[in-house]
Amino acid sequence: MLKGTNASPGIAIGKALVLEHGEINIEKKSIDNIDSEEKKFLDAVQKSKEELIKVKEKALKEIGEDKAQIFESHIMVLDDPELIDSTLNKIKEEKVNAEYAFSQIRDMFIGIFEAMDNEYMRERAADIKDVSNRVLRNILGMKFIDLASLEEEVILVAHDLTPSDTATMNKEKVLGFLTDIGGRTSHTAIMARTLEIPAVVGLKNITEKVKDGDFIIFNGETGDVILNPDESTIEKYKNLKENFEKERKELEALKGKESKTLDGKHVELAGNIGTPKDIEGLIKNDAEGVGLYRTEFLYMHRNDFPSEEEQFEAYKAVLEAMNPKPIVIRTLDIGGDKELSYLQMDKEMNPFLGYRAIRLCLDRKDIFKTQLRALLRASVYGNLRIMFPMISSLEELLAAKEVLEEVKRELDEENISYSKNIEVGMMIEVPSAAIISDVLAKHVDFFSIGTNDLIQYTTAVDRMNEKIHYLYNQFNPAVLRLIKMVIDNGHKEGKWVGMCGEAAGDKRMIPILLGMGLDEFSMSPISILPARKLISSLKYEDMKKLADDILKLGTAKEIEEYIKKTFA
Amino acid sequence: MLKGTNASPGIAIGKALVLEHGEINIEKKSIDNIDSEEKKFLDAVQKSKEELIKVKEKALKEIGEDKAQIFESHIMVLDDPELIDSTLNKIKEEKVNAEYAFSQIRDMFIGIFEAMDNEYMRERAADIKDVSNRVLRNILGMKFIDLASLEEEVILVAHDLTPSDTATMNKEKVLGFLTDIGGRTSHTAIMARTLEIPAVVGLKNITEKVKDGDFIIFNGETGDVILNPDESTIEKYKNLKENFEKERKELEALKGKESKTLDGKHVELAGNIGTPKDIEGLIKNDAEGVGLYRTEFLYMHRNDFPSEEEQFEAYKAVLEAMNPKPIVIRTLDIGGDKELSYLQMDKEMNPFLGYRAIRLCLDRKDIFKTQLRALLRASVYGNLRIMFPMISSLEELLAAKEVLEEVKRELDEENISYSKNIEVGMMIEVPSAAIISDVLAKHVDFFSIGTNDLIQYTTAVDRMNEKIHYLYNQFNPAVLRLIKMVIDNGHKEGKWVGMCGEAAGDKRMIPILLGMGLDEFSMSPISILPARKLISSLKYEDMKKLADDILKLGTAKEIEEYIKKTFA
Repeated sequence: MLKGTNASPGIAIGKALVLEHGEINIEKKSIDNIDSEEKKFLDAVQKSKEELIKVKEKALKEIGEDKAQIFESHIMVLDDPELIDSTLNKIKEEKVNAEYAFSQIRDMFIGIFEAMDNEYMRERAADIKDVSNRVLRNILGMKFIDLASLEEEVILVAHDLTPSDTATMNKEKVLGFLTDIGGRTSHTAIMARTLEIPAVVGLKNITEKVKDGDFIIFNGETGDVILNPDESTIEKYKNLKENFEKERKELEALKGKESKTLDGKHVELAGNIGTPKDIEGLIKNDAEGVGLYRTEFLYMHRNDFPSEEEQFEAYKAVLEAMNPKPIVIRTLDIGGDKELSYLQMDKEMNPFLGYRAIRLCLDRKDIFKTQLRALLRASVYGNLRIMFPMISSLEELLAAKEVLEEVKRELDEENISYSKNIEVGMMIEVPSAAIISDVLAKHVDFFSIGTNDLIQYTTAVDRMNEKIHYLYNQFNPAVLRLIKMVIDNGHKEGKWVGMCGEAAGDKRMIPILLGMGLDEFSMSPISILPARKLISSLKYEDMKKLADDILKLGTAKEIEEYIKKTFA
Repeated sequence: MLKGTNASPGIAIGKALVLEHGEINIEKKSIDNIDSEEKKFLDAVQKSKEELIKVKEKALKEIGEDKAQIFESHIMVLDDPELIDSTLNKIKEEKVNAEYAFSQIRDMFIGIFEAMDNEYMRERAADIKDVSNRVLRNILGMKFIDLASLEEEVILVAHDLTPSDTATMNKEKVLGFLTDIGGRTSHTAIMARTLEIPAVVGLKNITEKVKDGDFIIFNGETGDVILNPDESTIEKYKNLKENFEKERKELEALKGKESKTLDGKHVELAGNIGTPKDIEGLIKNDAEGVGLYRTEFLYMHRNDFPSEEEQFEAYKAVLEAMNPKPIVIRTLDIGGDKELSYLQMDKEMNPFLGYRAIRLCLDRKDIFKTQLRALLRASVYGNLRIMFPMISSLEELLAAKEVLEEVKRELDEENISYSKNIEVGMMIEVPSAAIISDVLAKHVDFFSIGTNDLIQYTTAVDRMNEKIHYLYNQFNPAVLRLIKMVIDNGHKEGKWVGMCGEAAGDKRMIPILLGMGLDEFSMSPISILPARKLISSLKYEDMKKLADDILKLGTAKEIEEYIKKTFA
């Protein structure tokens, strides 16, 4: 039995298929015929490119344009003359075999990108790795495991799944994912939840422990993985799986129902999305709106800023599809760990404490105004709410609102119409904003608490830093006090308060947040129906008392234990 | 008239001496006689080493052992076989002149270190630059401006001052410092305040605008710099200078006096220090104690951890010299922007939100216990207060206190005595600690608020990041509310509350902090007497009202204006 990070719920029972991306043996050989070796290399590049074009087309159809852009980046790697020419030169000058020459050049490039040590460059290094493996396999005439034409049901076991893997695989035949690396926010984990495939990640060396055909059982909710289980265990998990599926079915019955407590307190359960393609998941899971549309995906994996028109189309698509449900669209939150290849930014020592989100937008009004124009123009197609990220002071909030007014005036002059009823709100994710939320509440229509960053700044813990991860805890009493303060301050001014961080979809947090009076919970669409079920089973008056009790506790541990005890 | 960052107060009037460290012209030349070129290089290295040994000895005598360690690092650079052998190889293989070969190798090394992009490595890159300039000048037979034997009074103008500059210069002849780069916490600024020499830093291109012998006036308190002033300006500044010096003299009269307001409220004015050598400044400025002894300097610029004995001697020196005045010694605050060459640490994406200070000490108990043993053993020589940095939760505080108890038990077993009256406190520099200070107050004897980090985390602004520096403001209303909360929570439990961040010595902040009820203000020793003067001129009851008024304001700007108006 192994224990990993629970990345996507569900029970998987089946045979392993191990994707051994890493295992390509490269030997250095002297060659005589330079021409034929160069041809071998160029043919492999060409073949890889053709494969990638197909992958991209499949991805375009199945997972959406923005995610398919990844493969465009991969194709661009193969068009990079530096990579190609350096390899050809090495073959010629050192008279070595193509796979050796290419792997050496690849390692050099990866080394350079990884040394640059920022998220964007590391992504480029990952792209090069992904593409290079394809080229090397093609040079060596090795067969890919073609995930697109899986015929048997399998549990995929991999060091990590690449975007090519998840984009091309035949989802009907994939029972689950198990990976060596990654956390709850890694590509594999996010894709698993999007595709509703059970997954456990961060298992360290599962690819070494498992071979093709091994029988495996795992629980994506607990992170438990059992290799070659005995009959009684299989029986037990079959029952669990049935129950899980039964519960999923029961959840179906909650579609179309209101989200309210036993004593009639109503809350809004909305979804977090990244692209218009995610609308499908919103509808399937009966979201009552969108609490967070992360617009930065529109800006990523491309060579230049998206035009006003492109943005307009994306916003319009979501607004129209969900109309009249409210859609909270967050303005660009780039910087921090998210960079754009075409936006030159200075290297920062602490990017999470740096030039990002609204700070960048207020500095680069050209970028900001284009987005606001697109948002305003799209507003006539539905129920738009605009939200500013990373506000830390009243000055910033007023400055952002002023830019919005400026754009409105410009549209007025051009006789372009926009909705007059757009709510304007802000994220509460910086401690200073929470602390002066009484002041800020007078100038917004709503707050949405971003717990991921709020926890990070309040406790001075980088949420990506494994070494101090034990300090990153949503039950931190200081964070809970801030959340309560924000809700109270919002309500005093008659404004609604939502949450769009991970905590809003966590079943241990929901009772506390409900008791504190949170009005809107925005989460992964897949969590919405379970949240509705939970809320329908609770009494608001009890949860108020629970929240009061919890706010008196001084440590995260006591709070976790209190919750565990209460809901045992 | 130029405007820079006010780094050290005082008026300087005099002639410029421009230190042009950068201007060494290197040409590539082909050489025939490899042996003589190699000898030229090795002779220059040897001469540089001898010079550095002298500099180090001078520094040892005048500025203390720990700062002299810098030159030991410089000497070590010259002992690095990679640097030396690579240069010799280059001379031999490429048949090029010594200065060219060396400068190429130097650039490569600097490039490598700078690319690593962490503070420690950048410091190494700076060391290499500093040392290489010396070697290049020696190869080229160029004269150094020998700051040790200045005969005329001058204002030093430089891109930045190096540790060698400040260590060797004849301080009697230096009227002030002006530099292109740096902020209030740069080496030049700190040295200027320690030596009580006026300074303005961060002037961008002062070295281009000024030539040797230019007449300059500047005000280290406002950051104003005037080149070639007219007679009336000179007259005006002579008066300002006289006033400044008169005020300094008047401050002398405050020595030995109590620090109390007109209506009799007494506070403690203590000093921040880095090494036992700083005792001199404490005594000279009549510090009522030490509010922050930063022990990390004991650990820096060396090849291994300081032994228990070394630490004991350092702590004892300060405790004894200041006895019976209280000495707050902060346990090791390493990590973040401060690294140790001999302590291998993983590269972090956001070191300020990372593995640092108490987090490291609780993980590496061996390091922590050695320091605590040294502190306890030294406690019998004076009035010791132990302070833990970066506490973000009650769990951490209790864990740190438990390690202290463990060390006490070990000393008991060994029959080693220590004081039974040591106060144990913690820094409040993480927002979560401020927010749960009611809980924490039950478990400490005192709080000391570290505003530098508290502002940084509360507003999510890296205080070193120039691009968003406009957001880093001690008058941020959220920060002021947290400070008030901490003082109130401390007092409710009968504990005293101090402050050891920059704000405690700022004359615009002192009235607010006084009004909030702060008990202890710890600052650069040079700020103590001005603070005493200011406090003696204020009424506590008025300041309470001022603080209440200010806490109602919603922006830093309004607060700054309120203070400006009140004390106009």
